[in-house]
Amino acid sequence: MDFKGAHILHVNQFTREDLEKIMEVSKKMLPIAKGEETSDLLKDKILAALFFEPSTRTRLSFESAMIRLGGRVINTTEVKFSSLIKGESLEDTAKVISSYCDVIAVRHPELGSAATMAGASDVPVLNGGDGPGQHPTQALLDLFTIYQEKGKVDGLHVAMAGDLKYGRTVHSLAMLLGNFDVTFTFIAPEGIRMPGKIVDHLRDKGFTVNITDDLAEGMKDADIIYDTRIQKERFQDLELFEKIKSVYVIDKKLLSKCKEDIIVMHPLPRVNEITTDVDDTKHAAYFRQAFYGIPVRMALLAMVLGKA
Amino acid sequence: MDFKGAHILHVNQFTREDLEKIMEVSKKMLPIAKGEETSDLLKDKILAALFFEPSTRTRLSFESAMIRLGGRVINTTEVKFSSLIKGESLEDTAKVISSYCDVIAVRHPELGSAATMAGASDVPVLNGGDGPGQHPTQALLDLFTIYQEKGKVDGLHVAMAGDLKYGRTVHSLAMLLGNFDVTFTFIAPEGIRMPGKIVDHLRDKGFTVNITDDLAEGMKDADIIYDTRIQKERFQDLELFEKIKSVYVIDKKLLSKCKEDIIVMHPLPRVNEITTDVDDTKHAAYFRQAFYGIPVRMALLAMVLGKA
Amino acid sequence: MDFKGAHILHVNQFTREDLEKIMEVSKKMLPIAKGEETSDLLKDKILAALFFEPSTRTRLSFESAMIRLGGRVINTTEVKFSSLIKGESLEDTAKVISSYCDVIAVRHPELGSAATMAGASDVPVLNGGDGPGQHPTQALLDLFTIYQEKGKVDGLHVAMAGDLKYGRTVHSLAMLLGNFDVTFTFIAPEGIRMPGKIVDHLRDKGFTVNITDDLAEGMKDADIIYDTRIQKERFQDLELFEKIKSVYVIDKKLLSKCKEDIIVMHPLPRVNEITTDVDDTKHAAYFRQAFYGIPVRMALLAMVLGKA
Repeated sequence: MDFKGAHILHVNQFTREDLEKIMEVSKKMLPIAKGEETSDLLKDKILAALFFEPSTRTRLSFESAMIRLGGRVINTTEVKFSSLIKGESLEDTAKVISSYCDVIAVRHPELGSAATMAGASDVPVLNGGDGPGQHPTQALLDLFTIYQEKGKVDGLHVAMAGDLKYGRTVHSLAMLLGNFDVTFTFIAPEGIRMPGKIVDHLRDKGFTVNITDDLAEGMKDADIIYDTRIQKERFQDLELFEKIKSVYVIDKKLLSKCKEDIIVMHPLPRVNEITTDVDDTKHAAYFRQAFYGIPVRMALLAMVLGKA
Repeated sequence: MDFKGAHILHVNQFTREDLEKIMEVSKKMLPIAKGEETSDLLKDKILAALFFEPSTRTRLSFESAMIRLGGRVINTTEVKFSSLIKGESLEDTAKVISSYCDVIAVRHPELGSAATMAGASDVPVLNGGDGPGQHPTQALLDLFTIYQEKGKVDGLHVAMAGDLKYGRTVHSLAMLLGNFDVTFTFIAPEGIRMPGKIVDHLRDKGFTVNITDDLAEGMKDADIIYDTRIQKERFQDLELFEKIKSVYVIDKKLLSKCKEDIIVMHPLPRVNEITTDVDDTKHAAYFRQAFYGIPVRMALLAMVLGKA
Repeated sequence: MDFKGAHILHVNQFTREDLEKIMEVSKKMLPIAKGEETSDLLKDKILAALFFEPSTRTRLSFESAMIRLGGRVINTTEVKFSSLIKGESLEDTAKVISSYCDVIAVRHPELGSAATMAGASDVPVLNGGDGPGQHPTQALLDLFTIYQEKGKVDGLHVAMAGDLKYGRTVHSLAMLLGNFDVTFTFIAPEGIRMPGKIVDHLRDKGFTVNITDDLAEGMKDADIIYDTRIQKERFQDLELFEKIKSVYVIDKKLLSKCKEDIIVMHPLPRVNEITTDVDDTKHAAYFRQAFYGIPVRMALLAMVLGKA
């Protein structure tokens, strides 16, 4: 795809070549993201960060990415955007705001909202999460983390654990990894397993997909364990939730039974599902993963603005 | 008037000469506002955007204007400004904040609040709307839209439709246009007509002012139709509201019966009063109008900071 | 102490030498803070202003300070930080955000929260107030005000009045002044007097500490009167509150009975405890004091970033 002027809406919009291009540009952004080098690449460009639902970290990550490249930011964190309350369409909002800026990052609780805004906007729109829909920059930073931590993607065995049913990040990452040659293991208790649709899609494409509800068993041969938070709200049976919560915990001891170089990823926030004694081990990639949101978003901003 | 160091509080503070100066500077700002050229005119200047009530679009427009000129922004969108809650006077707030910045843009729900703050501030204050009072930058961008779309103001026939009683924008624009040679037609149903005070004022100054409740009739000879949203809250009789709402609609068909080069303006947000099939016609000026808030606010910021 | 990379958490962390260094750098920042000179000292540095409780003025002061030095800001004023709601630890939040920026300023309602975040952060943390705990930058700007207004600290007689029991600012300033040679007078009614712990601490160090509930008497020989707001919430007996409120008022008449060059300080907001007729007198230092937050925060930002 031609990134210049493009909207970033959905993980399925990328070919493997596109993904490799994003990874390559993200890698070049690393020293600037770390503040070791400075850049004026996006000087005089304005990002409008429109957050119609709170997602402090995603917003700050977009803003920091823009600023690290010398760009400027206007934003709104007002859940109740005043003109929308008055009955304005999302299209009109996008049309107007797009005349105030050079690129838009949007977070909105409704499925499809980012695409709706992209349709009316005069500038590129980056989807920062549209409810139960997509969150492509998260999936791309997850992919970048794998590249950085493992040096490659092909040939890896990727396990995913936790809430695989409602977890938007694991769905998106699984789809992205479908562009590479990996082995999947999905670890989840009954009720919050990976949707059959995704499992079937991957198997149809020829992938090996293992399914288990045993965390230790699932992690045994993995190069990467991508863990996610299990939310109480998903369970009607609270006793069951408590039981699962106490079993689905990654700690130092469990990791000692895994591959010596297994890395632990997590989209954060984590609560109890990864114990803090893991933080200081070489396995813990989750804080670096959060940081990698900066270079990846820098890459996307530069690319859609035609400056990469 | 001498713009350097001046407060922008009320449309009545401008002479025709002042208005022409603002239009002239706004026009020069256009390529920068569009991002075609860059500027460091206000480098090292800080705008404090103080929004004590939400008006996302006005705020973003002020901020974008400042940034396009190389300036910086600090802002608050906190309806409950913490020091005011503790009982501080608006004067004290203005005095303190004015020592943190070079210019203030303020939006506040109370009539006269911007003038109160201007009285205590050590830096210029731009009124971004003070409740039922003034919103001079909106009126100026409306005037600039007319200049840009029609190349002149004198000799035009300007129709205004919708809620002319409570609509702050139509009052301010009518007052501004009182500095030029125009013909007015005010189109509104009983109950939300243009206040007699304004009609009398214009007629006393020698203007032709037509009054009608028939939208098609009122638009027939107009060069410009300035439409506004009719709000349900203004009506006790909801049936009457629904009837009026269904009649006061500008669509492609209606425009086909008007002057060939009529333009449609609207302060936005619009709901149903202009159908979306108008958007793609040459008549639709409302999105450009929203954009013109940028060059006009750039002009005002530069002028009060003595940099125009 | 070595300021580079240091956290600014508590007034007790400074030696007299440290304080003099901060005062010296703050003084150099004055022309830039006033906008008379410009600076790119912190170009390409990012401040994350994390305000977990509203304190508009403190936040704007930090942000303006950063911007005056050419730096950039990302911020959150979201009381409900989305990841914390999901159960994340403050340590994890700090760890992640610190990878998005170069320095953090934090305001949080809980005692010790700034220190907790500092422990996990990869960049310096400036405590902008942690509930009933510390607010060191306020104390430092108070000290800087004394330096600027009086040219020195040693030998001065400093009176403090109002709510000395709950007033965080007077506690912190009293502790800071404990590094100098001053005479203290604490003026407060029964029930909201200066805590015995602080009085004893100062007396143990050899300071003269006068205690009175008579405002005129206490101010008589003072070089500085540091006044604070008395809050209704502190009183169960509302009649008593009203009586005290009407007596603890600094006005022009009262000042005429004080030292000819007494200055009045106040952390603001003030309500009725200083009458507005004082504002135009040479005694009124409180608005300059608010402004001095800018050069002092500039100094701290530059120092912890190793750029002073």
